[in-house]
Amino acid sequence: MVDLYPEPIERLIGKLSKLPAIGRKSAERLALRFVEMDREEVDALCEALTDVKTKVHPCQLCGNLTDLELCSVCEDPRRDKSTICVVQDTPNLLAIEKSREYAGLYHVLQGLISPLDQVSSEQINLDTLLERAEDPEVKEIILAINPTVEGEMTTLFLAELLKGKNVKITRIASGIPFGANLEFYDGTTLYKALEDRREL
Amino acid sequence: MVDLYPEPIERLIGKLSKLPAIGRKSAERLALRFVEMDREEVDALCEALTDVKTKVHPCQLCGNLTDLELCSVCEDPRRDKSTICVVQDTPNLLAIEKSREYAGLYHVLQGLISPLDQVSSEQINLDTLLERAEDPEVKEIILAINPTVEGEMTTLFLAELLKGKNVKITRIASGIPFGANLEFYDGTTLYKALEDRREL
Repeated sequence: MVDLYPEPIERLIGKLSKLPAIGRKSAERLALRFVEMDREEVDALCEALTDVKTKVHPCQLCGNLTDLELCSVCEDPRRDKSTICVVQDTPNLLAIEKSREYAGLYHVLQGLISPLDQVSSEQINLDTLLERAEDPEVKEIILAINPTVEGEMTTLFLAELLKGKNVKITRIASGIPFGANLEFYDGTTLYKALEDRREL
Repeated sequence: MVDLYPEPIERLIGKLSKLPAIGRKSAERLALRFVEMDREEVDALCEALTDVKTKVHPCQLCGNLTDLELCSVCEDPRRDKSTICVVQDTPNLLAIEKSREYAGLYHVLQGLISPLDQVSSEQINLDTLLERAEDPEVKEIILAINPTVEGEMTTLFLAELLKGKNVKITRIASGIPFGANLEFYDGTTLYKALEDRREL
């Protein structure tokens, strides 16, 4: 019985199926797609993969991903430099940008404190945040970290760390998403929604 | 508002989201995973991708994918050379191998006739099948092509084409899958299951 693809295909399937959200079946389908593809397309994909590794790095100031020295937010002179919004990663930064409500700067942690995954506070982008908090131009630091277990831990840790600085520390509200129905949310979410209630 | 990732990441997302079953969100997640990966891992993936293009090609005899001159089935002296099973592609060949019922050779079409997708009979691996059908050693050709619209068209076309040859032409049964419930299958499937009924 033949139960494997030729070695080069199996090797590629092995590598692809280690990627997030790609199981054995998807990896097989992808690998066979690559066999059909033009050589030029595969080369262009490899170049794009290599470029992502060689050209992309954290912004020197805020930790956001960029291919320049400073990221497009830090580099923009129109951004309000008195506010820093702390987020977990670049996708979260882009999510906040979508709200069109925020025009300040960011600080991207590139991770969360997680004792279970052995990520300590030294392994996330914190040091430069403490330096930035000393800048007299900075008036407010908004903690906009996902309300998960690791996120809450990181938020509380940061709140403690920044307490002594001469800057206002706030956090985003946790509650029921817009358009959703209360009945589908758990007790903790409802508790937080009540806790973060605001006067009208 | 910043709504895009840095250019190298966006370029990679663009390429990834063109792959089968990868949408924009999955492509984003994959691209960010590549940013985190070690350079060596990305290089190894690129090598695997390139190898699939340079080393894998159709078997000279049957059209199955291989990195050798003949595929592992054609090369195996224990296979019964009197029977050829015609399949759409290598995943279908591997599916039949899993049944452990079949010990003959294969012929892999690498496609189906599909006027809608402008795939004609010249664009699939047919010529060598006609040659192989002339071989006096070959006694039976089993058409094991998926029972879809394109598959049926290809099966009928092949049956017509092979009619004059001195070889038995059969096709696999179409019916209700093992373990399934009749009530969930459409009229065509039940019709075919009845049509392909066998005496006990």
